[in-house]
Amino acid sequence: MKGLVYGGPGKIELKEVPMPTLEKPTDALVKILKTTICGTDLGILHGKTPSCKPGTTLGHEGVGMIAEVGPGVRSFKKGDHVIISCITSDGTCEYCKKQMYGHCEDGGWILGHLINGTQAEYVRIPHADNSLHHIPAGSDEEALVMLSDILPTGHEIGVLNGTVKPGDIVAIVGAGPIGMSVLLTALFYSPARIFMVDLDQNRLEVAKKFGATDIINSGKEDAVQKILSETKDGVDVAVEAVGFPGTFDICQRIIRPGGHVANVGVHGKPVDLQLQDLWIKNITITTGLVNTNTTPMLLKTVMSGRIDPKKLITHHFKLDDVLHAYEVFGNASQEKAMKVIIEP
Amino acid sequence: MKGLVYGGPGKIELKEVPMPTLEKPTDALVKILKTTICGTDLGILHGKTPSCKPGTTLGHEGVGMIAEVGPGVRSFKKGDHVIISCITSDGTCEYCKKQMYGHCEDGGWILGHLINGTQAEYVRIPHADNSLHHIPAGSDEEALVMLSDILPTGHEIGVLNGTVKPGDIVAIVGAGPIGMSVLLTALFYSPARIFMVDLDQNRLEVAKKFGATDIINSGKEDAVQKILSETKDGVDVAVEAVGFPGTFDICQRIIRPGGHVANVGVHGKPVDLQLQDLWIKNITITTGLVNTNTTPMLLKTVMSGRIDPKKLITHHFKLDDVLHAYEVFGNASQEKAMKVIIEP
Repeated sequence: MKGLVYGGPGKIELKEVPMPTLEKPTDALVKILKTTICGTDLGILHGKTPSCKPGTTLGHEGVGMIAEVGPGVRSFKKGDHVIISCITSDGTCEYCKKQMYGHCEDGGWILGHLINGTQAEYVRIPHADNSLHHIPAGSDEEALVMLSDILPTGHEIGVLNGTVKPGDIVAIVGAGPIGMSVLLTALFYSPARIFMVDLDQNRLEVAKKFGATDIINSGKEDAVQKILSETKDGVDVAVEAVGFPGTFDICQRIIRPGGHVANVGVHGKPVDLQLQDLWIKNITITTGLVNTNTTPMLLKTVMSGRIDPKKLITHHFKLDDVLHAYEVFGNASQEKAMKVIIEP
Repeated sequence: MKGLVYGGPGKIELKEVPMPTLEKPTDALVKILKTTICGTDLGILHGKTPSCKPGTTLGHEGVGMIAEVGPGVRSFKKGDHVIISCITSDGTCEYCKKQMYGHCEDGGWILGHLINGTQAEYVRIPHADNSLHHIPAGSDEEALVMLSDILPTGHEIGVLNGTVKPGDIVAIVGAGPIGMSVLLTALFYSPARIFMVDLDQNRLEVAKKFGATDIINSGKEDAVQKILSETKDGVDVAVEAVGFPGTFDICQRIIRPGGHVANVGVHGKPVDLQLQDLWIKNITITTGLVNTNTTPMLLKTVMSGRIDPKKLITHHFKLDDVLHAYEVFGNASQEKAMKVIIEP
């Protein structure tokens, strides 16, 4: 079968790879119907994730059809359509019992990282019972690709960690796919005002259509001054959705006493924490890898039409064009790209 | 009357000052029976708190007897014995309604900071109804001085913010009065193990008597390596009770996935937050000034004998000897001093 294989920093190649096979009784083999590219995949490509070894098939998102299950799989059978969670988890370890599936002692984020992933024709999913979700009949499966990673990440690590509540003032720094997912899922909880901060005017305009009340182009104006001048004493929730010291810094400078800074971005270096100002402010800073414990809840919001994740999809490619898809996604601003769908 | 007056960095003087008078109907005038010195007072003395102006009488802790109340005070009358909370608050603003009394829009930490404080014969307490607590008859009033600031600070900003739970592994970095208050109040919640880290062997031995299960002299061994080697993957809760980059750093390096770093220390400069390691660990970092919303609860634990804050008191002085008390408290390690009681 074909798979997109990481070949070391800067190198990816679509090539023939062996078909995956069941390795444990709790595994399932899934035929990929749709997959996508995540910022984390670009991170691997750029050599930021040395734990991902050359030879690994990339990708940790997608929907598919069960091709085969091991004898230990109880909830899925051949032919079932499923959402593949980016997190695989055994459901039984101490972390799983705390719903911290991302830190599962026999799983976590391993797909397309420590084991072969979803940017291929087939993928092996360990602990299938706890790592796959049934797709209801009649669903728009393409939209559900957004439930593999991006929507639960925005919801859990941005919105829930940030404890967005009715009446809150929220700032989201970074209007990429993750920031947009934070925006869409923050709206569940009826904040009073949502500031969206980015350098890309196109993305800001999209954010406004999605429900941001205020957009700030931080290349053209000082986001910190603007937000402080427009609020009494800062925001209740600031979500960092980029992963740079500068964007984290905006968040720590706009947070009001008692507020929450929810870090979603993947960082590559330390940041200066302004503890000489923050020690007295009763703030909370959270970090996190997605747990995917709210995936079933999010699926219900999609099925009921409360949220339309398809809005995040801007481009479509065949698996044969996956290298082009990486180019477009890697050049998202110029290409006006958000999420791209790849079909084997 | 006599009061200890701040005269600018490095300068304090015990001198005659005007008797305070009622300024608003909600004020009370309190005759000080016992007061104490806080690390924050040393901070002011060392010029770290420019918001405290020369001429201010210092001190924000103490017990006393009501000398006079304004016509708007409902809950206290002349002769009542009271605990003076370090935080004064109107009880009605948005922050007070969230129990964030430390950020009250007409109060907060102002005693001995923005208005004259308790290291004197009398003190004016604004918003007396929400800022004082009745002392039950027959109490050991000296012990209750610890309820003005130090015990609620340790409990709220260390233990509650850190969410200490039964079975948790806790590390407290700093075995000074605040670290000890964290220790004493952490025991309410039955953690499995408490590591106490400090440079001072005497304080560590005291911590062991108070209930720490493990003591680590960080001048003699590497606290991070020691804790990581003695736990599966770090601690559930790390409490920073010093206020230096190095002690914060210990906390961020020993925290396990899903854990809480509760910062209690007063910091004077930024710290390096190791977000390149922490972004994926689902940790929570909290900061805070005490709210004093658990003072009534703590009073019950003292009255029932569940906790004995008197253990924190090592020295006694008369107000006339307050300069000597500052010397002893400022040289705590050599003097084996923890909290000092000062009596007018």
